[in-house]
Amino acid sequence: MAEYSEFFSKNEPCANFEERSQRIKDFCDYHMTKNSRVILITAGGTTVPLEQKTVRFVDNISLGNRGAASAEYFLDAGYAVIYMHRQNSLEPFSRSIKGNVLDLFNAKNGTLEISNKVRGLLGEQVSRHEAARAQNRLLKVSFTTVADYLFLLRAAALHLAPLGKHAVLYLAAAVSDFYVIPEKMSEHKISSDSQLSLNFHLVPKILKPLVLSWVPDAFVISFKLETNESILLDKAHAALENYKHRLVIANDLESRRERVVLVSRTDREEIRMSLEELSAGIEIERKIVARLTELHAAFLANQ
Amino acid sequence: MAEYSEFFSKNEPCANFEERSQRIKDFCDYHMTKNSRVILITAGGTTVPLEQKTVRFVDNISLGNRGAASAEYFLDAGYAVIYMHRQNSLEPFSRSIKGNVLDLFNAKNGTLEISNKVRGLLGEQVSRHEAARAQNRLLKVSFTTVADYLFLLRAAALHLAPLGKHAVLYLAAAVSDFYVIPEKMSEHKISSDSQLSLNFHLVPKILKPLVLSWVPDAFVISFKLETNESILLDKAHAALENYKHRLVIANDLESRRERVVLVSRTDREEIRMSLEELSAGIEIERKIVARLTELHAAFLANQ
Repeated sequence: MAEYSEFFSKNEPCANFEERSQRIKDFCDYHMTKNSRVILITAGGTTVPLEQKTVRFVDNISLGNRGAASAEYFLDAGYAVIYMHRQNSLEPFSRSIKGNVLDLFNAKNGTLEISNKVRGLLGEQVSRHEAARAQNRLLKVSFTTVADYLFLLRAAALHLAPLGKHAVLYLAAAVSDFYVIPEKMSEHKISSDSQLSLNFHLVPKILKPLVLSWVPDAFVISFKLETNESILLDKAHAALENYKHRLVIANDLESRRERVVLVSRTDREEIRMSLEELSAGIEIERKIVARLTELHAAFLANQ
Repeated sequence: MAEYSEFFSKNEPCANFEERSQRIKDFCDYHMTKNSRVILITAGGTTVPLEQKTVRFVDNISLGNRGAASAEYFLDAGYAVIYMHRQNSLEPFSRSIKGNVLDLFNAKNGTLEISNKVRGLLGEQVSRHEAARAQNRLLKVSFTTVADYLFLLRAAALHLAPLGKHAVLYLAAAVSDFYVIPEKMSEHKISSDSQLSLNFHLVPKILKPLVLSWVPDAFVISFKLETNESILLDKAHAALENYKHRLVIANDLESRRERVVLVSRTDREEIRMSLEELSAGIEIERKIVARLTELHAAFLANQ
């Protein structure tokens, strides 16, 4: 039995899995009738629970900004977007509104008003968000644990499959490589009476069945993040070799907002921000998405 | 050398530690001149980084709601509040504003307006927040890692000490019991080529020096949370025996919003919510704080 089948048989989807899967299916069905290009964007980290009645878990620093920013630019480019994100991670449009929510307002003389400092930005983001929703072009679905993520990703892939080459998967979520298998998990909060050793199993490499069986016709893009740049491109090439998908976007933790490399089986293409672009507040995701829509258009033209 | 001294010598405070410590000192000095009762409330979980260039960390499910709610009620009771919280955890007043920030507004006909559904709640919370700040009675200071938390807690305790019995420490943060010592930590993101074993050391029990040396005169309250209720009260009593502070608030994960037990060396007092109170939206923190202000007043009267 393949490792991923074993994972799905030994873990359980969380309580509202069916409802979320159905919403994805309905969204895909709707956009099938519209002949839309549909992109699944995953964003944010997954958790790895350490106890059955979970108090503690392993997490990842990802806040979901790359996914949320990319969702905005793909919406601008006309795509329908399934934004599959870690609960409470950053989301498209609202990600720009920073700090304490109460500071968006003031209550002078007993009348609540929107602060003038943020009115312009807020107005723009609210309008963009409302427009995307009015056209039914943005579906948000959340996950928390790594099991939750994998069950949802499989479901989403199967719902996207009928869209064929019109479907893009942009797997920017920081998915845990390790997890604690349910039968080895402590039932209760782990006692702090003595030092602790934890053993983690490898999370199955889901890209393999995804590319081979679930969405064989789709345009699949994965991400590779490292803190040691010297191993980054080798890892990206190894991933393409193993999983046979279209593209790996390789990024280094420190420089990820200034430079990424789009790695395909035959090519490497650097996307780099100039100092002028960075100081003008232009985001690298704008350039990444512009290039990806070109590559996807060429892929569609080869039909 | 005591275990906590070793911790402070082997770990480092984070970059803006001095600035945050100074803000706490200024706040304490100001309220010393006002003869205020000052409470330090800690809230939210601490992280345990697994790598030096941190991508992964262990975390705790705490969102900081108990601390944030309690801060509001202590402000209502006239206290000056130092709210020491996990970065991005819930905060007093803003915690009630749930969901996507953009849904607080609508942009009909190009004019941005506050949604009528939330206007009342928002107005109340913005006013309360502005009032607390205008009186300089709310200081917010954030932490992320467990080391960050321990350095800040020590600094805050030392700044509170001159307030004597007027100082209350309400330690509701979910502080990790385990951590990875810096010299054993992987420099780079841990490779996913093979299964993973991690060894954690015990975090020193900071309550001991805190009660004995740093704030010997203050009213110190700690929390104990378990998922297995049968061991909860024994653990609460053991903590009081070990650390000699005033009170442990014992709570079970599942029932923590309906029932807690205030455990002192000589007494156990249950605080329980009725169904009527819960369905009226009354929070257990309101009752906890009401009782604690009585106990603190009695403690002050014994001066």
